Amino acid sequence: VRLGIVGTGLIGASAGLRARAGGRSVTGWDRDPEHLRQALALGALDAAAAGLPELLASCDELLLAVPVPATLELVARLASDPPPARAILDVASVKLPVVRAASGLSAFVATHPIAGSERSGPGAARTDLFEGRAWTYEPGAREPARSLARALIEELGARPVPLASADHDRIIALTSHLPQLLAVALGKQVAAHVDEPGVLELCGPGIGSMTRLAASPWSMWRGIFTENGQMVAQEVRILTTILSEAAAALESDSPQALEEWFATAAGLVARLQPNGTAAERVVETPDP
Amino acid sequence: VRLGIVGTGLIGASAGLRARAGGRSVTGWDRDPEHLRQALALGALDAAAAGLPELLASCDELLLAVPVPATLELVARLASDPPPARAILDVASVKLPVVRAASGLSAFVATHPIAGSERSGPGAARTDLFEGRAWTYEPGAREPARSLARALIEELGARPVPLASADHDRIIALTSHLPQLLAVALGKQVAAHVDEPGVLELCGPGIGSMTRLAASPWSMWRGIFTENGQMVAQEVRILTTILSEAAAALESDSPQALEEWFATAAGLVARLQPNGTAAERVVETPDP
Repeated sequence: VRLGIVGTGLIGASAGLRARAGGRSVTGWDRDPEHLRQALALGALDAAAAGLPELLASCDELLLAVPVPATLELVARLASDPPPARAILDVASVKLPVVRAASGLSAFVATHPIAGSERSGPGAARTDLFEGRAWTYEPGAREPARSLARALIEELGARPVPLASADHDRIIALTSHLPQLLAVALGKQVAAHVDEPGVLELCGPGIGSMTRLAASPWSMWRGIFTENGQMVAQEVRILTTILSEAAAALESDSPQALEEWFATAAGLVARLQPNGTAAERVVETPDP
Repeated sequence: VRLGIVGTGLIGASAGLRARAGGRSVTGWDRDPEHLRQALALGALDAAAAGLPELLASCDELLLAVPVPATLELVARLASDPPPARAILDVASVKLPVVRAASGLSAFVATHPIAGSERSGPGAARTDLFEGRAWTYEPGAREPARSLARALIEELGARPVPLASADHDRIIALTSHLPQLLAVALGKQVAAHVDEPGVLELCGPGIGSMTRLAASPWSMWRGIFTENGQMVAQEVRILTTILSEAAAALESDSPQALEEWFATAAGLVARLQPNGTAAERVVETPDP
């Protein structure tokens, strides 16, 4: 069963490494020839396709691992001219617009691996990137594509989690898109003062971990904030309300009000451990 | 030269481990007998003092490594009944109130190591916790205490950075107290939904790193938010303004406005690397 990977950045190359480790034959293509060359050199691919049409024509299963705008474009193109692949998975961080664009493409399964890094490109790829992580898929996808998608997700070391696209987009705004925007906003605020005496020196490990995500490239996030902007804005508004409450408590010299917040947040951190993922304590979710 | 450490939690025990590795004789005391016993067992101390008065009476230099309220209390006590030590350093994350409380205590030097962890207690101690990190001290402290403090800071592996207490408190509100509050606020927001279907599964490494600090105990932060509340509130207000701008950009379907923010924040992250600290690229600051 030949796997074709479109886009050999962090996600695509990590999937290639893992699939090959499991014995799969993997062909890849990237519109950036340097990314494609690197992925091949790193062992993430058995072969580099001469072009996208060649790749699409020759694979039994396809993983589309490109940013949101490129995913939308590619999925629309495949919907109007379906390739022979029996399962076509995307990995975009926003699902509803992708599902809409894929209308009529019966082999398509909208999916999203809950894994990643603020680093990007094939150089950041890891064989174990998806190990034990949740990887959602649209339960409304058609068979046999849906079963093949579940099998591929498991083959890549991840846990298949059925999640309707609308629920996915609403929840991911809170758990991923909001934290990303927050890291950027905090980074912007600190950057405005970083050349003042003492500021860089007073940046310790805490601010380091709270801004690290901001190294993730805009090219990856542009499409996400375009397609899921309303959901994200809603979560941002809720956070500003929480922060305004905190400011008011501090200004009125009643920080004790924050004690309960600390307890609540520490409880969440404990549930996300170890390794910042909840993978270990969630039981396998059955196919609906 | 006998070093006495009051408070054998993360900071005190890490200092003990490092000082002993450098050949110092270290005696410690903690009001929590279990912390004291653990620190001794871990090799962070040569000896455990029978009590605080015994420790204070017998040391040439003192490191006060206790939370802010306990620091204020202890420093006031020492100011009214000075021990024989030639240098007394605190490590509190807020400096002005401590300097005020220490008024008249000529051996006192207000300091702050820019190092730490969301974990606490002697069990989290590390010999290299301060390695290469900035460690600020009040340049207005008297001699010979000031020089002895600089020497001790270097002995512990850190880089002594002179910084006036008022500047310290203003800057640290931005670089440490704000990120802490942010991790807690985000944790609170996510915790409110974490039992809904799919939410815990969609918590990936990003939300993990953005809430990790919230594991830091309230007992450590209560005094900080009490003593530096106004400064922190000011920074929180600035962040809510930035976030409101972001929400407005998303709501009006113009996420492109965020592109520049991403670039600015990524620039900051690059300057904080590696390991989330700026230590490596800052030149030694001379004693003023």
